[in-house]
Amino acid sequence: MAFNKRVKIQELFTQDYVGKEIVLMGWVRTKRSNKNVSFIALNDGSTIKNYQIVADPNQIDEELLKKATTGACLKIKGTVVASQGAGQSTELVASHIEVLGEADAEKYPLQPKKHSLEFLREIAHLRMRTNTFGAVFRVRHALAFAVHKYFNDKGFFYIHTPIITASDAEGAGETFKVTTLDLKNPPLTEDGSINYKEDFFERETNLTVSGQLEGELAAMGLGEIYTFGPTFRAENSNTARHLAEFWMIEPEMAFYDAEDNQNLAEDFLKYVINYALENCQDDLEFLDKRAAEEETSKKADQRSELGLLERLKFVVNNDFERLTYTEAIDILKNSNHNKKKKFQYLVESWGVDLQSEHERYLVEKHFKKPVILTDYPKEIKAFYMRQNDDGKTVAAMDILFPGIGEIVGGSQREERLEKLTQRMEEMHIPTEEMWWYLDTRRFGATPHAGFGLGFERLVQFVTGMGNIRDVIAFPRTPGHAEF
Amino acid sequence: MAFNKRVKIQELFTQDYVGKEIVLMGWVRTKRSNKNVSFIALNDGSTIKNYQIVADPNQIDEELLKKATTGACLKIKGTVVASQGAGQSTELVASHIEVLGEADAEKYPLQPKKHSLEFLREIAHLRMRTNTFGAVFRVRHALAFAVHKYFNDKGFFYIHTPIITASDAEGAGETFKVTTLDLKNPPLTEDGSINYKEDFFERETNLTVSGQLEGELAAMGLGEIYTFGPTFRAENSNTARHLAEFWMIEPEMAFYDAEDNQNLAEDFLKYVINYALENCQDDLEFLDKRAAEEETSKKADQRSELGLLERLKFVVNNDFERLTYTEAIDILKNSNHNKKKKFQYLVESWGVDLQSEHERYLVEKHFKKPVILTDYPKEIKAFYMRQNDDGKTVAAMDILFPGIGEIVGGSQREERLEKLTQRMEEMHIPTEEMWWYLDTRRFGATPHAGFGLGFERLVQFVTGMGNIRDVIAFPRTPGHAEF
Repeated sequence: MAFNKRVKIQELFTQDYVGKEIVLMGWVRTKRSNKNVSFIALNDGSTIKNYQIVADPNQIDEELLKKATTGACLKIKGTVVASQGAGQSTELVASHIEVLGEADAEKYPLQPKKHSLEFLREIAHLRMRTNTFGAVFRVRHALAFAVHKYFNDKGFFYIHTPIITASDAEGAGETFKVTTLDLKNPPLTEDGSINYKEDFFERETNLTVSGQLEGELAAMGLGEIYTFGPTFRAENSNTARHLAEFWMIEPEMAFYDAEDNQNLAEDFLKYVINYALENCQDDLEFLDKRAAEEETSKKADQRSELGLLERLKFVVNNDFERLTYTEAIDILKNSNHNKKKKFQYLVESWGVDLQSEHERYLVEKHFKKPVILTDYPKEIKAFYMRQNDDGKTVAAMDILFPGIGEIVGGSQREERLEKLTQRMEEMHIPTEEMWWYLDTRRFGATPHAGFGLGFERLVQFVTGMGNIRDVIAFPRTPGHAEF
Repeated sequence: MAFNKRVKIQELFTQDYVGKEIVLMGWVRTKRSNKNVSFIALNDGSTIKNYQIVADPNQIDEELLKKATTGACLKIKGTVVASQGAGQSTELVASHIEVLGEADAEKYPLQPKKHSLEFLREIAHLRMRTNTFGAVFRVRHALAFAVHKYFNDKGFFYIHTPIITASDAEGAGETFKVTTLDLKNPPLTEDGSINYKEDFFERETNLTVSGQLEGELAAMGLGEIYTFGPTFRAENSNTARHLAEFWMIEPEMAFYDAEDNQNLAEDFLKYVINYALENCQDDLEFLDKRAAEEETSKKADQRSELGLLERLKFVVNNDFERLTYTEAIDILKNSNHNKKKKFQYLVESWGVDLQSEHERYLVEKHFKKPVILTDYPKEIKAFYMRQNDDGKTVAAMDILFPGIGEIVGGSQREERLEKLTQRMEEMHIPTEEMWWYLDTRRFGATPHAGFGLGFERLVQFVTGMGNIRDVIAFPRTPGHAEF
């Protein structure tokens, strides 16, 4: 017999149920009782809003009501009535309550008080039951769906690029090894090195750092594609901005040049942020208030000028500033900030890589809006970026967001076989192993471009969460692989 | 200057461009020439349909036309006109052609002839440029989008469960190890075993075999969730049905019992298959013809009674047959097939695991429709499945499809702490390590259920491709991690 004949709490706020007898199921957030009546705030995860249950001790057994403590799971039958109290327009007058699962107040870690984010990270298996994390993960869902909807509506095809890969030619960072060999007694070759012929894939394999190269292969057949999958960095970075396992979105488009790429990336970012604004109003209002409270604990000079919601609307409604790396260096070099030596790394000459402090200066102080920086020196960018005619720069772009820094990195790809192989040789990337990548330049090559977006950075920006570990369900960082 | 001012070929079949001057870009599939005119069939990946380009040698340089061989990439300016030829309603009369990238006919592996699927697997970096694989990957995209749309529309939240995990408690299969240790000189503890304290995560980690357990954690806060991510099996299975890396969809729902779970799974499967029927008509018609041709090479008794499209429509339009394992054993035991010893494994007693041949008999011979088998013996199912009152069976379900066998496996989950820990102890699963999983039964437990769907099996069913390696872009199998 089907059990789930319930109404979702979210529906009670959007549809008229007054006078109807319904069943609700959910978890107790709080309970207030006096001798005449108990008020239970119930949440079922479908919305950040709790729904008020009114229980009359003459109707509902008192022993049972005692078990309806914070965290307990209830099934409640009752009638929806217009509410007399403030704060809600309707409420449920309970005729029957069943405790599906208790939550011993002595032992249940989530009591109705403020818990630190650090504490909640240690109980990540329960933190989705809180207002903050409920909101974060509903917004994360909406953003993920917006990503798929945006690309689907534009005729892009979703490609699952491989997670286990034998190629680390991109050199995007330290990789995790994947193996089935016995680590204690690995098979050795005659010369004493590991005999990977006996490993599962008969070669050395690792976890992918990017699906871009495989994405390019697909774009050369399907035209416009995107990936959305996990990527990995085995870097020992214990910061609020780094995860060892994170999700990336990587569109690759045949027939796009650098400007087409910039146009797409800006349009895409605005679309997904606007989607969240339109579809996650309750959650974002909660997170907006939460962020505002966090701000009060910061020093005056470190506070944001705009609130969370203001910041999101600002991004959606304003053109991103586009300028070249060379122009950015000029601005930075001549800035009072640089002259007064307020940068930790002073900007003195063309060719240096930009530090986070420089990116934030451009975005937050100078332009006060998102910035697309283009045409970086080829020495500080990857081998596959298209070489500009000046011989010094490549058709790269980075998109910089306030508070986040780099949120998108991309480029037009080098489609000219000769220029590509020459650059690979200069950078000591083995061209033989990459025969399949080079084939796309040997046969039916075309101008093409693409970019990568770290999904968690986007979720951080939209939710206002300061630590990246708080926007993925079960974060993987050095020393941490719990749950 | 933006380069991509082109019309996608797909748009030429849905919108009226007659009389308009446009730019097309794409790859040459075939070229037919006589001294008066050349016809080029151009494909840009947006649709399986090629578009006919008409090039007059008086207008277009002949040397240039010589370079427009199969696989070459062209940019063509011209005017759309009503076509005089059969097979298309409009065509493009070229005024200007630019060869973006050549494809030397001596070297380009994809010539206009039939290539074997085995050969195309070896050039998986190019196979998306063929009709068959273009169709397969467009359908795969549509199915993936339908998955997200279905769950989003129902109020489910997409959760990214971890890929790297320290828990293999489910025991779903052999795992891949993930490590940053030096395999040649791994650090050892005093007693000579590997010192995982020095590994990246300071413990032994592997690639996930399922996101279910973490999905349950999320469902206990958010209500209804789903995962859609890669999962891994380090099994040495070189079959047409197994991959070492594949994508799984795993919904988990609070407040669902076994029947709710079955209802959802059936509704979900019908929705996504119907979505493909409605959105991939051209591709599915091509694949339908392709499958019919494949059938002619099979022995008469191995041919399907229904064509691909008929099979898909049949699934969408008919209720799945639901019966218990016990009822299925009775049917199988008493079948003529069993009595005449046509099964490799004869069905003699209750309790045996069903083989693929038995599942196919039920689906293809006995019921002739998809089957939901429920209430399996607890000994052949996982520890987390809810124990039925009979003490012998659990509230499991497997959904069996024609030609594919098991496409979905799921169950109501055991929410009763005592019964769950007892079963874990019987099955030697360490309860201490699983404290976080058990917490969901300690605090606010509720009936809940979920299932898993192997995405590639679904893509196989919808595309009619016989080998699972042909429905994922870059398949990972024993000895194979190319590209």
